[in-house]
Amino acid sequence: MIPVSTDTFQDTLNLMNIPNIASATIRQIAALASHLQEHLGEEFVHLEMGNPGLPATQAGIEAEREALARGVANLYPNIAGIKALKDAGSDFLKAFFDIDIPARCVVPTVGSMQATFTLFLLMGQRLKGRDTILFLDPGFPAQHNQVKLLGLEQRSVDIYDCRGELLEQRLEEAMADGKVSAIIYSNPNNPAWTNLTDTEFKILARMAEKHDIILIEDNAYLGMDFRRRYGIPYKAPFIPTVARYSDRCILLVSASKIFSYAGQRISIVCMSPAVADRRYEFFEKFYEMPTLFDAYVYGVLYCASSGTAHSAQHAYAEMLRKAVNGEIDFVAETREYGRRAGLAKKLFLDNGFHMVYALDGEEPISDGFFFTVGYPGLTGAELQSELLRYGVSTISLPSTGSRQQGVRVCVSLLNSQEILDRLGQRLALFHHDHPVNS
Amino acid sequence: MIPVSTDTFQDTLNLMNIPNIASATIRQIAALASHLQEHLGEEFVHLEMGNPGLPATQAGIEAEREALARGVANLYPNIAGIKALKDAGSDFLKAFFDIDIPARCVVPTVGSMQATFTLFLLMGQRLKGRDTILFLDPGFPAQHNQVKLLGLEQRSVDIYDCRGELLEQRLEEAMADGKVSAIIYSNPNNPAWTNLTDTEFKILARMAEKHDIILIEDNAYLGMDFRRRYGIPYKAPFIPTVARYSDRCILLVSASKIFSYAGQRISIVCMSPAVADRRYEFFEKFYEMPTLFDAYVYGVLYCASSGTAHSAQHAYAEMLRKAVNGEIDFVAETREYGRRAGLAKKLFLDNGFHMVYALDGEEPISDGFFFTVGYPGLTGAELQSELLRYGVSTISLPSTGSRQQGVRVCVSLLNSQEILDRLGQRLALFHHDHPVNS
Repeated sequence: MIPVSTDTFQDTLNLMNIPNIASATIRQIAALASHLQEHLGEEFVHLEMGNPGLPATQAGIEAEREALARGVANLYPNIAGIKALKDAGSDFLKAFFDIDIPARCVVPTVGSMQATFTLFLLMGQRLKGRDTILFLDPGFPAQHNQVKLLGLEQRSVDIYDCRGELLEQRLEEAMADGKVSAIIYSNPNNPAWTNLTDTEFKILARMAEKHDIILIEDNAYLGMDFRRRYGIPYKAPFIPTVARYSDRCILLVSASKIFSYAGQRISIVCMSPAVADRRYEFFEKFYEMPTLFDAYVYGVLYCASSGTAHSAQHAYAEMLRKAVNGEIDFVAETREYGRRAGLAKKLFLDNGFHMVYALDGEEPISDGFFFTVGYPGLTGAELQSELLRYGVSTISLPSTGSRQQGVRVCVSLLNSQEILDRLGQRLALFHHDHPVNS
Repeated sequence: MIPVSTDTFQDTLNLMNIPNIASATIRQIAALASHLQEHLGEEFVHLEMGNPGLPATQAGIEAEREALARGVANLYPNIAGIKALKDAGSDFLKAFFDIDIPARCVVPTVGSMQATFTLFLLMGQRLKGRDTILFLDPGFPAQHNQVKLLGLEQRSVDIYDCRGELLEQRLEEAMADGKVSAIIYSNPNNPAWTNLTDTEFKILARMAEKHDIILIEDNAYLGMDFRRRYGIPYKAPFIPTVARYSDRCILLVSASKIFSYAGQRISIVCMSPAVADRRYEFFEKFYEMPTLFDAYVYGVLYCASSGTAHSAQHAYAEMLRKAVNGEIDFVAETREYGRRAGLAKKLFLDNGFHMVYALDGEEPISDGFFFTVGYPGLTGAELQSELLRYGVSTISLPSTGSRQQGVRVCVSLLNSQEILDRLGQRLALFHHDHPVNS
C-alpha cells in the first residue's frame, strides 16, 4: 500500500533505533527501505546507494584471474605498488589529464576510502597546529566520518552560494587562522554532480600556495562530465584537474566507478613530486623517514593493511593500460549513467521538483551518476522521509555537508524501464498528495 | 668477499640513512642486505622476512578465480563479510579450537594488519581513560607502530622472565592503574615461537575479568606448534586459545601463513558474543551505534576501507571450508617450517649460538616459523650488524619489544639445501672470527 502511513513509518524508525533520519548512514537507509518494503508490498526504488550499476570491466577480471593462476597469492605485495600498476597509473594520468606524475609517485590503496582515511591521518601530522581538513561540500558523508574518527577537526565550505570568483573569499575566511592542512573535494562532485570551473581550479591553486595547503582531489567519477567528450587518450579535451594549476596536489583515482570494480577495493593515490618529496621535521622524528611519500607508504599504509591485494593490483594495471592504449573506452561505457540521469531528472522535474545544485558557472550541470533535487516547502529530512513513504529511498543533502534543502538521487540502480516507470508513478502520486502552493 | 669490512658496512648504513640499526624496519633491513650483497658478491641468506615460503593453497586460488568469473568484482562487499566466509570461519573455530563463536561475530579484514590497526583504535575509545594497549612481548614490531600511529599509549611485559605463575604479578603491576584497555599477543609467539601454557591462559582470563580488559589473540601461526598433532577437524588435541577460558576475547585468524595467502590480504576478526554485543556509552554517542560490533564494523571498518576485496573473501571461505571438511590439512602443509627450523637451529647451536626464548614451562619450544638466538658478548644490535657483514640478515630482539639480547630468525625462505649450506658456512666463519671466551 503506497504511501506507507506516517504512523507505520514512525514505528519503523523507532524499531530500527533511528532517532534522526538526516544523520542515518546510507546502510541504515537501505535497511530501513527493506523494512518498509514489507508494508509497501512492492519493491523499493533504490536511489540511495552508489553501487556500480554496470558489470565489472572484463579486462580487469581476466588479468586478475591470470595473476592468481600465475601464483601471486602467497607473496606480500610491495607496499608502494607493483611496477605494472605504477607505470600504467602514470601513463593514464598523462593520457587523460595531460599531467606528468612519475610512476614512483603512484601508490595503490584498498579503495579511495583507505586513501582518504590514511591521507587525512598524515595531513593531521605534517605541520604543527594544522589539525583541520577543509571540505568543499557537499561531499561524500563517509569522508566527514573519517576525519571525526581520526580525532581531527573539520570545516566546510558549501559551494552552493560561492561558485566562481566568490570561492576565493570563502576559502580565505576558512583558512585565515592557519589551522587547515588540506582541502578535500570530489570532481565531478558527489552528490551535486557539479564540476569545478577553470576559475575555481585557479583559485584553489592560488589559495593552496598562499596558505601552504595540500589539495586532495577525489576523481571517483573521472571523465563523467558528459557535456564534453573526454576519454580519448592523449587527445584534447583533457579532463580538468587542479594538477594543471598547482603542484600541491594529491589525486585519487579509484577503479570502483570508472571500471565498475568496487568489489575488489582498488584505487591509486597519485602525488605530485613536490608533495611526495617534501621533507618534514615531524615525519623525520616520528617515522625516522623525512619525506611525505615515505612516511605515507612505509609509515601509514604499512600500518593500515600492509598494502593492497596482489591480484587486484594486476587487474587495475591492465584496465588502465588498456584505457591508455585505446582498447577500453571507459567514458563511453559509463555514459549509460548520463542517459539514466536524463530520464530520471525529467521524472522529478515533471512532478514539482527542482534541481538544487543546477549550474557550473553559467552552464547547466552534466547528467551523470548523481543529481540533487528539492521540493517546495519540505526540508531535506522531510523530503527524504516522505519519499521513503512512497517507496523511494534517497539520502538527504544535510547528511552530505550541504546547507541546502533537498535529497541526493543516485541513478546507478535505475537499470530497467520497469524501475523507471515505477519511479515515475510514485513521484506522480507523491506530487498529487503534496500540492504546491503557488 | 665475506665478511664485508666494518668500514664498508658503516658507509652503507650512512648511505641509507639508518642511524640506528635496532630501530630500522624489516623493509630497511632487506634493502640494506641488497646493498651489502654487491660488496659480498654472493647472495644473502634472508632470515629477516616473514614471507610465506610455500605456494598459496590451490583451493583458494580456484575459488577466487571462479568468484571473479561469476561477476563479484562490481559489487561492494558486505562490510560484515559474505555469508560463506562468516559461516566457514565459525565452523573452523569449532573444528580446530573447539570453541563456539557464531557466524555473525566473524568479520573479514584486509589482513590481520588492518584488524589490529582498527581494533586498537576502537580499544582506545571504548572506556574513558583507557588509552593503553598492553603487549605480551616480544611481538610483531608493526603492532607497536600501529599503537603509536593512533596516538595511544602502550606498555609491555616481556614474558622472558615471567612465564607460568609469575605472569600474574607482572600483569597486575601493568594494569593496576586502570589505564589498560586491551592486551595483544600472538600465539605461537612471533618472534620467540613460545606457546602460552594452560596456566598462562588461565591467568590472562582471570586478569581480563578482574580489570575489564579485552584480550586480542593473534593466531597468525595457528596450529604450528608441531609438538602436538593439531589440525584434525573436530578431534582432540584442539589448538590452545584463551577463548577456552574467557569470553572477553577477540581472535584474529589470518590466511597469510596457514594457507600461504599473504598476497591477497585477508583475515578474519572473531569476537566472542559477549565482546561483540556489549553496549558502550561512548559508541552510542560517537557512532550512534551502541554495541562494540556495530561500532567496529559500520563505524571503523567502513571508514578504513569499506570492507575487504570480494574475491579474497570467497577464497578464504573455501579454504576454511575445505580444512573443516578434512580436504586440506593446513597443519601438515606448514609442518615444512618446523623441518627447516630444526635444521637451522642445529647450524646456529653448533656455531656458538644459544636459544634465547627456549622453554614453554618445562618443555623446549616447538620448531616452527621463527626462533630466537643470542651469541655470547654481543647485544642484539651488535649481533644483527655482525651477521649482516657475514651475509645473513635477521631482525634484532629489541626491535620486537624484547629486553633480551639476540636476533629473530625466520626460516620461511630457507627453501633449499643450497641455502642451508650457505648459512652453515657463514655461521662457521662468523664463529671462527668471534671466539667465545669460556
